[in-house]
Amino acid sequence: MINIRSVGVPGVILAIAASALHSPLVVSTCLSVLASICTYNAIPLVSEVFIKHGRFGKDLLKEDRPIIPESMGVVVGVVYFISMFLFIPVPFISWFNGVREEGLDFPHHKFAQFLGGLLALFSMLFLGFADDVLDIRWRVKIWFPLIASLPLLMVYAVTYGGTDVLIPLPLRGFFSDKILHLGIFYYGYMAALTIFATNAVNIVAGINGIEGGQTIIIAISLAINDMVQILTNPARRDAHMISLYFLLPFIGTTFGYLKHNWYPARAFGGDTFTYFAGMIFAVVGILGNFSKTVLLFMIPQIFNFVYSCPQLFHLVDCPRHRMPKINPKTSLIHPSTFDISKSKPLGKLIIQIFKTLGLTHITIDPETKRPLATNFTLINLVLVKFGPMSEAKTTLTVIIIQALSSCLAFTIRYLLVHLVYNREE
Amino acid sequence: MINIRSVGVPGVILAIAASALHSPLVVSTCLSVLASICTYNAIPLVSEVFIKHGRFGKDLLKEDRPIIPESMGVVVGVVYFISMFLFIPVPFISWFNGVREEGLDFPHHKFAQFLGGLLALFSMLFLGFADDVLDIRWRVKIWFPLIASLPLLMVYAVTYGGTDVLIPLPLRGFFSDKILHLGIFYYGYMAALTIFATNAVNIVAGINGIEGGQTIIIAISLAINDMVQILTNPARRDAHMISLYFLLPFIGTTFGYLKHNWYPARAFGGDTFTYFAGMIFAVVGILGNFSKTVLLFMIPQIFNFVYSCPQLFHLVDCPRHRMPKINPKTSLIHPSTFDISKSKPLGKLIIQIFKTLGLTHITIDPETKRPLATNFTLINLVLVKFGPMSEAKTTLTVIIIQALSSCLAFTIRYLLVHLVYNREE
Repeated sequence: MINIRSVGVPGVILAIAASALHSPLVVSTCLSVLASICTYNAIPLVSEVFIKHGRFGKDLLKEDRPIIPESMGVVVGVVYFISMFLFIPVPFISWFNGVREEGLDFPHHKFAQFLGGLLALFSMLFLGFADDVLDIRWRVKIWFPLIASLPLLMVYAVTYGGTDVLIPLPLRGFFSDKILHLGIFYYGYMAALTIFATNAVNIVAGINGIEGGQTIIIAISLAINDMVQILTNPARRDAHMISLYFLLPFIGTTFGYLKHNWYPARAFGGDTFTYFAGMIFAVVGILGNFSKTVLLFMIPQIFNFVYSCPQLFHLVDCPRHRMPKINPKTSLIHPSTFDISKSKPLGKLIIQIFKTLGLTHITIDPETKRPLATNFTLINLVLVKFGPMSEAKTTLTVIIIQALSSCLAFTIRYLLVHLVYNREE
Repeated sequence: MINIRSVGVPGVILAIAASALHSPLVVSTCLSVLASICTYNAIPLVSEVFIKHGRFGKDLLKEDRPIIPESMGVVVGVVYFISMFLFIPVPFISWFNGVREEGLDFPHHKFAQFLGGLLALFSMLFLGFADDVLDIRWRVKIWFPLIASLPLLMVYAVTYGGTDVLIPLPLRGFFSDKILHLGIFYYGYMAALTIFATNAVNIVAGINGIEGGQTIIIAISLAINDMVQILTNPARRDAHMISLYFLLPFIGTTFGYLKHNWYPARAFGGDTFTYFAGMIFAVVGILGNFSKTVLLFMIPQIFNFVYSCPQLFHLVDCPRHRMPKINPKTSLIHPSTFDISKSKPLGKLIIQIFKTLGLTHITIDPETKRPLATNFTLINLVLVKFGPMSEAKTTLTVIIIQALSSCLAFTIRYLLVHLVYNREE
């Protein structure tokens, strides 16, 4: 037994640290807390440098339109990678501590999972930053995540390689087998997931705290799901453990960033942050072999994307900024609008359907007398439904919607799933 | 036998392509040629975008000081990574083609070498670009390669793990064994190599074509060394093969870039290129387990670094730009100078020694009457020794010096080595 008096407090701390080293999860958690503190402290330190070199944007929803340093995803990413690089040896420490001599092979496949995941993430961090600096065209950058995910898909192929899906009970009448062999299409799905996740997070944007807020809820939900699986499903333990190792430092760094991005924002993440964050979800889904579950936790992003489609595909007018606008008298934010008359015929039909479903609000421009519809984004819809609000309250409402969607996702994943699949399957 | 008439030319091409797929080196070479063409074509396409977003520099050695797009290492890097991402599955194609069924394990350790190497390279590409955009301080960025190399060092630890060096014959009297166990210091050496390689390439700079020119000579020399080893040393075949896979697309993309960077330059690489290029050499040295040989091929960079030290450590004055200056009348470039009187006592002694060795030329400023010494860089020294030259001829001279140094390196590696080591060792 350790005599506390003889070794003193540092000795006890060292002993705890040494035993904690046997639990990589404890080390990961400690590193994530440290990463959070580092990110929080680093952002104000580098803000001036970013502004001086042109990396800033104007906060359009404030009366004085202050200049805010942008691309702070660089800080989030760099701190994230430093923590991950320091962490990588930890899960393998028992191998370094003598297991090597006993002739046990090093688990290269697990190590490759870390490297492949980090490579995909670094690709997106780089491309996000390049986009912030060089303003790359949509039709080019939409393919970035596909390229970035190639090594990750190969990691999947050599680690799991499974491309079969279990057909839900109600649909089994249409198939001869209860298993559907998707083959190459499963890889197509995973590649599409990387494109979707990065871009879907990127277009829920425009008000203070929204990028960090939505992503931290998704990340925490996925981490809770990982912990539930680790505790209840021993066969899936390793897969969800690696997902946790990737998520915890992301939650840490994003939390440090969110404190500065929250209303009134002193830092913007830029595409650097949103692309990086979106890729995290795709990476953990693919590395943990739960790429379908990841989508369950992105219901608001899926809704926002589908809802945005008529504007993204130019069936109706799509202004450059679709973020809400501020009323300088009340300091409340209102939904922004677009001109209906610029719509294609199909677009006009969609506007009618959306109006009937209560998804858009039609007004008449007092000056031009032209009809206007509110822009098709989740944030504008929140303002249509709940009326004008302060910017902070709008962000909070969207985050609450994200959290409620996560509750729905857990219900589907753990309760409703038994309606469409047999329990024993 | 294939009947050419029945299958036609496309069939023959397909057959050749199919058999070539069995030789990853052929695929790598084809991809590298493609990468070269892509880089060459992409640079003019994106130049306007780079300039529009502030990524440009003035070419100070031209009379009209034209604006040249900078950070073109981004194009080199992105094309390089796309080719590598497409290439990664190729060396493992036999495993995908059915070997899996025979129960043979996938060679995860080889795969991890690719991923670890690319991760280190992507880290440096990102940090190089971040430095170009944000102009990061020396005392911060000097540590970048160390962090970037952490996963690579772990790949080394779990692939080779060897940290012993053979003591040269003349020194064996001082040691009890002919092997020296360096342990952790060997990792320290490899980490130092990454810091050295990236920064040493970065400071041989300032005239058109020099960054691309020096690195392509080093890369070609290392590739030749790889091929010699592959043909003569079966035990080291795999290690040198992976080095070739990393070098060939680098030679390809750098060649495409060099065509634009050559006098008169239409593109600058920026720190993005030099950091990326420097890291390539460290990566292949570590992955191929020949990190000492890599230094042999960087003799001009080592000389330039040691020669620069008095200025880098501020023992003598170090002007912001140490590149040569142009004489507008003759269009020839002359060595640039610094003010001797600003030197510390030790610095003055060094200037005396350098003057005696013919490493610097002392003149008197005609206006201020102060003594001036030529800046301590390889490029200035070339101009001191050979007299003022055109910019293109200066670059060519430095490249010839680099090529001659490579010949010296081969002589040391394959002939003189027998003077200090026994042949059978």
